[in-house]
Amino acid sequence: MNINTTRVETLSDGVIAIVITIMVLEFKLPSVNNQATSTSITNHLLHLLPYFGVYLFSFMMIGILWTHHHHMFHLLDKIDNTVLWQNFTFLFFLSFIPFSTGLLGANLKIPASVAFYGFILLLTTLSFTVMRSYTLSQGFVHKDKEKRFTDEVYKISKRAKYKGYIACVAYLIAIPLAFVSVYISYLFFLVPPVLFFLPDGIDDERLAEKIIEKNR
Amino acid sequence: MNINTTRVETLSDGVIAIVITIMVLEFKLPSVNNQATSTSITNHLLHLLPYFGVYLFSFMMIGILWTHHHHMFHLLDKIDNTVLWQNFTFLFFLSFIPFSTGLLGANLKIPASVAFYGFILLLTTLSFTVMRSYTLSQGFVHKDKEKRFTDEVYKISKRAKYKGYIACVAYLIAIPLAFVSVYISYLFFLVPPVLFFLPDGIDDERLAEKIIEKNR
Amino acid sequence: MNINTTRVETLSDGVIAIVITIMVLEFKLPSVNNQATSTSITNHLLHLLPYFGVYLFSFMMIGILWTHHHHMFHLLDKIDNTVLWQNFTFLFFLSFIPFSTGLLGANLKIPASVAFYGFILLLTTLSFTVMRSYTLSQGFVHKDKEKRFTDEVYKISKRAKYKGYIACVAYLIAIPLAFVSVYISYLFFLVPPVLFFLPDGIDDERLAEKIIEKNR
Amino acid sequence: MNINTTRVETLSDGVIAIVITIMVLEFKLPSVNNQATSTSITNHLLHLLPYFGVYLFSFMMIGILWTHHHHMFHLLDKIDNTVLWQNFTFLFFLSFIPFSTGLLGANLKIPASVAFYGFILLLTTLSFTVMRSYTLSQGFVHKDKEKRFTDEVYKISKRAKYKGYIACVAYLIAIPLAFVSVYISYLFFLVPPVLFFLPDGIDDERLAEKIIEKNR
Repeated sequence: MNINTTRVETLSDGVIAIVITIMVLEFKLPSVNNQATSTSITNHLLHLLPYFGVYLFSFMMIGILWTHHHHMFHLLDKIDNTVLWQNFTFLFFLSFIPFSTGLLGANLKIPASVAFYGFILLLTTLSFTVMRSYTLSQGFVHKDKEKRFTDEVYKISKRAKYKGYIACVAYLIAIPLAFVSVYISYLFFLVPPVLFFLPDGIDDERLAEKIIEKNR
Repeated sequence: MNINTTRVETLSDGVIAIVITIMVLEFKLPSVNNQATSTSITNHLLHLLPYFGVYLFSFMMIGILWTHHHHMFHLLDKIDNTVLWQNFTFLFFLSFIPFSTGLLGANLKIPASVAFYGFILLLTTLSFTVMRSYTLSQGFVHKDKEKRFTDEVYKISKRAKYKGYIACVAYLIAIPLAFVSVYISYLFFLVPPVLFFLPDGIDDERLAEKIIEKNR
Repeated sequence: MNINTTRVETLSDGVIAIVITIMVLEFKLPSVNNQATSTSITNHLLHLLPYFGVYLFSFMMIGILWTHHHHMFHLLDKIDNTVLWQNFTFLFFLSFIPFSTGLLGANLKIPASVAFYGFILLLTTLSFTVMRSYTLSQGFVHKDKEKRFTDEVYKISKRAKYKGYIACVAYLIAIPLAFVSVYISYLFFLVPPVLFFLPDGIDDERLAEKIIEKNR
Repeated sequence: MNINTTRVETLSDGVIAIVITIMVLEFKLPSVNNQATSTSITNHLLHLLPYFGVYLFSFMMIGILWTHHHHMFHLLDKIDNTVLWQNFTFLFFLSFIPFSTGLLGANLKIPASVAFYGFILLLTTLSFTVMRSYTLSQGFVHKDKEKRFTDEVYKISKRAKYKGYIACVAYLIAIPLAFVSVYISYLFFLVPPVLFFLPDGIDDERLAEKIIEKNR
């Protein structure tokens, strides 16, 4: 990993940290009045539960995207100007997640807000997967002296790429279906995290670890 | 500490820096009018004193959590995917502190806001302590060539773990008692910081220093 | 690159990450009411399209400025106190971009908001280009053992400087012309990004890469 | 500088970057209406000029504090738990600058807002200078093999300490005098930046550079 990659990761980490944190600003305090009681505060908190659920899901999705981002950059030997701008595109779409989270949290059962939430996740995931495909096609992915090891890196990077495209397909199905039933869309939104947490989904982390240990 | 750990720390530091800073956004300016005088501004500032007190306490608690986080990661030789998601869970709960601080600052004597404040601290502390227990049980904690040194690292890590669980118990007691008297809850909220600042509470820092010096 | 440069870059990256992200806070949620429908939400989203367009452009401009900042610092051997304060001046003007973006997004056809947007870009670009000129005139730019290489570094740094001044001229023309026709101003706003993405505009990146590889 | 110092600097840089940037959120957009004209927007911008002036001054003061923070940590060989909490105290007071800036920007001639602004600067500067004194008294400041060099480091660190205390005295005088005349207070607010930009004020930077070069 060259120094260039490091500063791209620093900026990305900064943006991701802010995106994940400003979502919490949507938890608005009850308007101050002198009659606040435990009951009124409890009601206010219960009222926030739908947003809490969407926030939890968005937090997890950004966590997954950060993990992917983190591992992908560790499997790269270098990047170029195109990757730099693919990364900016990814961060641009990612920056809409707090807005789409707020919109969905306030309108859980309205098809348009469900579809918009899916649309932002689609753009975020697609821009990330296009970046991964590009680094694979350009040969930026780590090539090792040991052929066996290089093969493994490529196998896992490609699997991660396919998973990214499957996630995009899930979103593409979920978006129009929101206008049939929002519950069907919610089911499809679960596909990407399930794919991610399936055992082999985290192989590229173990591989990145190995590369780091070898290069130490 | 491998490079993976570093980027987890960078993201965590980013999130913690934002969480600790956005609390200050709750200090609202007086609504602008042409009759502002020194008296009206002083009254406005005095009016903010309760929130100031809670902000100070939350700032200190996040400072303590950051210090624990910092030292724990320095005592680790490696992390795995589980630690990564335990850390996300910790950051998720931590991100609620500005909201619970704002709620408590505006309702210092309402049991529900005191209980909610304690509940967020409980979840934050518990998620952190579970992460520490996991790294201990999995043997991720630094093992040194010198047995005497390894023993010391384990002794101190375990003590920090027990202190974490004691803090959780303090919160578990404080939460229901808020409905009896909020002042009793406030007393229990002081247990974790007192435990932390007790002399041996900072031993793991000295140990981390030693490890760093040895590995230099 | 000495350690001093690193911490200046870290602070700059932090500020840039925040500036680029807080622009998204302007995407306001529709005020909550019980009659929200897919139609009302779609209308609200369509209503945000003008701001979306300006946000996209500002995001790209900050991306370009970050890339320039990133590459320029990589071509430097050292910095001094003057560069430190030129950098603060650059960050100060950059911090107005979210405000001018919000103003323009809400008033796309009002000359004063177009002129103000151009004015902020002018100050940002000018302060950056003055910093670049200063590092060139003071000889802080990387000098290599190979004369041929040093010549290339200087040639490219100077070209980047001239491009910076051309961008400033474009803004200087765009600002008064906004009061004739905002569309003419918009055309001139396109000059700097077009200049940047022209093939040789990214030569200094390749050069920075070479320096990094040589110094590894 | 050990790795511990690095992470303290990372967190501090994060907090400082956020503090310096959120001040810009006080630049409120004019409330949207259909009759916005160039005249109304220009009036709105002119209306923001007082806040702009205070923002510029606060930005510069935070820049100065960051520079001091940066240089002081470079002159340290190590830190302890006390420095860690002195640093948290410094960041705590620093986090009030956006609030006091907003208050002063809206009430430039009201003694209470001028005094409060000075009070926050006093606490920030005092907490920083106490931290510097402590590191000096505890011998954490860099000791070099060359005695001549160690002497220089101490001479400059002590001068910086005295300048810090002079700044505190200036604020102590400015605060009560605000109730006589705010203009006198403003004059005293200029003492610390003037002291800082005086030639020998930046000697510790040159020294830090030397230490870095020697330790490379």
